[in-house]
Amino acid sequence: MQKLDVAVLGATGAVGQRFVQLLENHPWFRVAEVNGSERSAGRPYGEAVRWVLDGSPPDSVAGLTVKPLDATFDSPLIFSALPKEAADKREVELAAEGHVVCTNASVNRMVEDVPLLLPEVNAEHVRLIDVQRRKRGWTTGALVANSNCTAMPVVMALAPLRDFGISRLLIVSHQAISGAGYPGVASLDITDNVIPYVSGDEDKLETETLRMLGRLEGERVEWLDAVVSASCNRVPVTDGHLVNVSVALEARPELDEIIERWTNMPGLTHLPSAPERPLQYLPQIDRPQPRRDRNAGKGMTTSIGRLRRCPILGFKFVALSHNTIRGAAGGSILNAELLAAEGYIPSFQPVVAQAAPTGK
Amino acid sequence: MQKLDVAVLGATGAVGQRFVQLLENHPWFRVAEVNGSERSAGRPYGEAVRWVLDGSPPDSVAGLTVKPLDATFDSPLIFSALPKEAADKREVELAAEGHVVCTNASVNRMVEDVPLLLPEVNAEHVRLIDVQRRKRGWTTGALVANSNCTAMPVVMALAPLRDFGISRLLIVSHQAISGAGYPGVASLDITDNVIPYVSGDEDKLETETLRMLGRLEGERVEWLDAVVSASCNRVPVTDGHLVNVSVALEARPELDEIIERWTNMPGLTHLPSAPERPLQYLPQIDRPQPRRDRNAGKGMTTSIGRLRRCPILGFKFVALSHNTIRGAAGGSILNAELLAAEGYIPSFQPVVAQAAPTGK
Amino acid sequence: MQKLDVAVLGATGAVGQRFVQLLENHPWFRVAEVNGSERSAGRPYGEAVRWVLDGSPPDSVAGLTVKPLDATFDSPLIFSALPKEAADKREVELAAEGHVVCTNASVNRMVEDVPLLLPEVNAEHVRLIDVQRRKRGWTTGALVANSNCTAMPVVMALAPLRDFGISRLLIVSHQAISGAGYPGVASLDITDNVIPYVSGDEDKLETETLRMLGRLEGERVEWLDAVVSASCNRVPVTDGHLVNVSVALEARPELDEIIERWTNMPGLTHLPSAPERPLQYLPQIDRPQPRRDRNAGKGMTTSIGRLRRCPILGFKFVALSHNTIRGAAGGSILNAELLAAEGYIPSFQPVVAQAAPTGK
Amino acid sequence: MQKLDVAVLGATGAVGQRFVQLLENHPWFRVAEVNGSERSAGRPYGEAVRWVLDGSPPDSVAGLTVKPLDATFDSPLIFSALPKEAADKREVELAAEGHVVCTNASVNRMVEDVPLLLPEVNAEHVRLIDVQRRKRGWTTGALVANSNCTAMPVVMALAPLRDFGISRLLIVSHQAISGAGYPGVASLDITDNVIPYVSGDEDKLETETLRMLGRLEGERVEWLDAVVSASCNRVPVTDGHLVNVSVALEARPELDEIIERWTNMPGLTHLPSAPERPLQYLPQIDRPQPRRDRNAGKGMTTSIGRLRRCPILGFKFVALSHNTIRGAAGGSILNAELLAAEGYIPSFQPVVAQAAPTGK
Repeated sequence: MQKLDVAVLGATGAVGQRFVQLLENHPWFRVAEVNGSERSAGRPYGEAVRWVLDGSPPDSVAGLTVKPLDATFDSPLIFSALPKEAADKREVELAAEGHVVCTNASVNRMVEDVPLLLPEVNAEHVRLIDVQRRKRGWTTGALVANSNCTAMPVVMALAPLRDFGISRLLIVSHQAISGAGYPGVASLDITDNVIPYVSGDEDKLETETLRMLGRLEGERVEWLDAVVSASCNRVPVTDGHLVNVSVALEARPELDEIIERWTNMPGLTHLPSAPERPLQYLPQIDRPQPRRDRNAGKGMTTSIGRLRRCPILGFKFVALSHNTIRGAAGGSILNAELLAAEGYIPSFQPVVAQAAPTGK
Repeated sequence: MQKLDVAVLGATGAVGQRFVQLLENHPWFRVAEVNGSERSAGRPYGEAVRWVLDGSPPDSVAGLTVKPLDATFDSPLIFSALPKEAADKREVELAAEGHVVCTNASVNRMVEDVPLLLPEVNAEHVRLIDVQRRKRGWTTGALVANSNCTAMPVVMALAPLRDFGISRLLIVSHQAISGAGYPGVASLDITDNVIPYVSGDEDKLETETLRMLGRLEGERVEWLDAVVSASCNRVPVTDGHLVNVSVALEARPELDEIIERWTNMPGLTHLPSAPERPLQYLPQIDRPQPRRDRNAGKGMTTSIGRLRRCPILGFKFVALSHNTIRGAAGGSILNAELLAAEGYIPSFQPVVAQAAPTGK
Repeated sequence: MQKLDVAVLGATGAVGQRFVQLLENHPWFRVAEVNGSERSAGRPYGEAVRWVLDGSPPDSVAGLTVKPLDATFDSPLIFSALPKEAADKREVELAAEGHVVCTNASVNRMVEDVPLLLPEVNAEHVRLIDVQRRKRGWTTGALVANSNCTAMPVVMALAPLRDFGISRLLIVSHQAISGAGYPGVASLDITDNVIPYVSGDEDKLETETLRMLGRLEGERVEWLDAVVSASCNRVPVTDGHLVNVSVALEARPELDEIIERWTNMPGLTHLPSAPERPLQYLPQIDRPQPRRDRNAGKGMTTSIGRLRRCPILGFKFVALSHNTIRGAAGGSILNAELLAAEGYIPSFQPVVAQAAPTGK
Repeated sequence: MQKLDVAVLGATGAVGQRFVQLLENHPWFRVAEVNGSERSAGRPYGEAVRWVLDGSPPDSVAGLTVKPLDATFDSPLIFSALPKEAADKREVELAAEGHVVCTNASVNRMVEDVPLLLPEVNAEHVRLIDVQRRKRGWTTGALVANSNCTAMPVVMALAPLRDFGISRLLIVSHQAISGAGYPGVASLDITDNVIPYVSGDEDKLETETLRMLGRLEGERVEWLDAVVSASCNRVPVTDGHLVNVSVALEARPELDEIIERWTNMPGLTHLPSAPERPLQYLPQIDRPQPRRDRNAGKGMTTSIGRLRRCPILGFKFVALSHNTIRGAAGGSILNAELLAAEGYIPSFQPVVAQAAPTGK
């Protein structure tokens, strides 16, 4: 199987670097083009990037010349780690030109015909691409988004509980510094400190969560009918967003039933980046913890712990995901794998081990 | 005015050291005796203590010989920073012997005739000492407690809102490492990490909060009739407990009314350790923060911020207090000042600038 | 005594904020004017500043309107926390206009007629102002600098040892993040990390150290004749620069003699910001430590510890100073106090308790 | 090839856990027995251990029953992560009983017939086992040690420079908290702080370094004839010891020659835990850094950077190694692999790809 060429937009930023890192040795995709800031354009990626992850950029990408954003891209598949403003028009243009664009930017997430994908949760939402193509007159192009990195572990944990009837949801987050990109949070602001505010995230948690948990009804997603209250905090942790969640479940299940749902949530094992277990429930009283659990399933597994009764909403628990892997670049790559497996990238047909889950 | 001799029990521990530090140059009290672990007994305090605060122990205390716990204490007033087990019987014994014991230990906090004091909030609870003395046959002795260090900022923030009708209360904490004493939290557990569990604290938050906010009815405290749900987390911060609070207020006040209550909460300015303002409301979107606000009012002022609507409970906000000052040693000292001003320490009558607030 | 009006340049930056904080309630000086970035000019300081220190900016300064850098300043005394480029020409212009300028910028530190002052160490260097005024045709104006914040503790520790004959000096630093200003070091760069490089500081340590330890000879400073090797590292600490120093002393004194010199170093107690003891030697095996010792003498005392034999250079020890107080704003204020006491600010004659040390 | 059974002593401690983690899926060895503290003995390892690394203990070991230290061990190969006191006699007893003991404890490191091994540096020292066996009357038993975790990167960096003539060596360390084991360093001691003291490590650096760099001469190791001065500091970093090294090289090579030596140091690629490159030289001005470089070569590669002239000793640079992998458990496992490849474990002959380097 020949690998599919992909472009990474915003490849010199913190999330862009994660794309580059995670795509090294990817069985289906190969980074063929990289875009970076104007200052970087024209220079070799390895020189232009201020690499903030471990080690150094992969040799295979270090030699690529950084392209400006208005360049022509040849890769059928494009990953975007662009900042909001840059993403706004350009992502739609590229999709209109025929590229499949998997974006981590927030700007198009709530557009009605753009799927906000979390494959294990709402793979059926991919069918919005059919709507998108028809309405917009696109043939091979598409635009799909992944969610806010803090909404992600919440949605992951609640998805298997949907039929218990989720009505109210109170979320308090402890978010890692990498969620703010690079340079992002000043060390003078966060060392020996907590910042009880993350710009924009409370709104995103209160909306994206409901859209992701929603059902596809005809040409649009019917949002989950629930009330959400979110409070977001930044903590001095490098990677891994931890959330305290209280939730009302109308069916009032036993605690064991909930844990069983979590433990048995099936993985999309036909997709190479999908972890064997999308969720793991940790029995220890003091887990999950960001440093110790963020890398579970190569950063793609969500860890849950401390399920207990909440005297107000009924149930409470703690959930954790790696915010720049599952919550950003890794999530976007998994979305692309789903699109490929579902046949939405016409020029590329991966050999997959088993039938796709949405039955398309 | 001659200063009153005081003893500090558990003086070599983290909270004990705060007592020693805060009592240096206290206008009413003078550390005359110190107790420490068996290993420390008989040695000069300055040698026995592994000082974990800034600088060094005060010279005036460094030369005192550490007494064993079963020693005779001559000081009329005793501050206890003993661990739970050690505190259990010995505090009651010392009170029975005629000492006024102000304890930071949790073991006697919920005993019906032991006042759980937060002077700006429930100074009237001191009258439980009359009950205590009559029931137990004590004359000069007394036992009063201060609350859990995480309940403290919550109670402080809610006290001025009591007549709005508090019915439900959801608390998520971000607690500093100093709350666990010394050596306490291992650095390998908390560096680049959050621990979503603090042993015993959720229970304390769900009970002490209601007792402190209760009204004295005859010989006992009528607890506040509300439901509390607490989730406790440890974060890599040295000092300062931050809490996210969601609360239902039956009277549905305007946000401005709430802020006005907070801003106008009167201070007990006749007590030397009381801050001018028990509460401050910070208008900045990202405050309070532990490192920047914990020392407000010399660590005795509670800081509040981010008051806004909660889609589920009605209101939400963030509160912060210094956990080893206002939440432990400083709170206990303020309690003792209240007792002295109210005439509960027979051998000592401080000169106070104005009438005491409880009108005894 | 009427207070002298002072202006603070670069007042919205991290060091500028320290100037504002330390000058609150200063017995001699009063902040009358503040300058900030172009973006801040014209706005009230309290609104324009993103305050990164504890609490909030003092009310007395919060209401001042931020002036642009090219404004006219009326204050006879000017403190500069300008970045290097901005400082370059403007500081000299202001001195030429008649202002006494005490700068924390590095750009003019090594100019031959600009005193690089550390009052307890080289107060005699103030006489370079006479040279400066004569050469440059200035009458009331002057320009004096304080040193790099990492050189400071080294110079402080070595000053009392000069007559033992310092010939070689090897320094390895552990520098706090506040040394880089705000936003300065990205949290993603320094959390759970050490950066073995601080731009420009190794050069400064290898030159400024020698100039500060030099003797005034006629119209210039004769540098200390020694060889210096410096290695600089950034560590995840908010404030306080720690240095490991190895030094060759030709006279080969006993360790006790060295400690005695440190302990007996006289303070400039006629200057309000001077600590009683410029140096303290800590006997504990594991001190000084940044968090526990940086605030000694209100951040103006240098702490030393662990003096022992070095098998290579003869002696080694550890020293620590608060980098934004003694090493920056506080140091600059102390310099200004020295200038005032020595009569170099013509419009202002403070009442000082005792004779000035340089006998001018 | 059947795997060799190994026992891990002190398996519940921090280094013991690393042994268990690194031996999971080891191609030659299989953990068959574990020892832990008295409190743990008799319980399943998975329950007895307070796992402080990422994730959870491997299933294959979690089910093993923890043995007391005085139990009989059946495994021919024993890894010891015992504390010094426990290690003292027991390691020698086990070797006398016929076990090959690879220890991380310091107590026997400097015994004349115990090899202090760093395979890429002094593989020839394994021949001390012949001496050991003859002198002590052992047949199959042996005792070999690996070095202090801070000496390790220094020795690694200097080994390829030995024939330039190393005469003087000044080391200042920045050591990670994991070097102190668990619970080890209290978070209240190290958060926002540096501790300029690590008990015992300066002595070890000043002696072990020279022994490891020495040549085998007949029946003993002739130490490198050089003078070492070490200063040790603890920093708030989880893993990775960084050292600033200044060194005098009598041959005064060019900087390029030194880098060439480092870059070309051969790896022991016939040993499964040996990294392809024992050393890497990083050209960036601000590297190596603990968080970003500690995992190079799966934690087995030493990273070096910032080679430049030292005005005092001639050369200076920065080196970094993962202290609990290469500097402890991983180093010990590599030692065992060398012993196996060299035929020192009679009951086990691994299939190795190429000739052993010492030519035995």
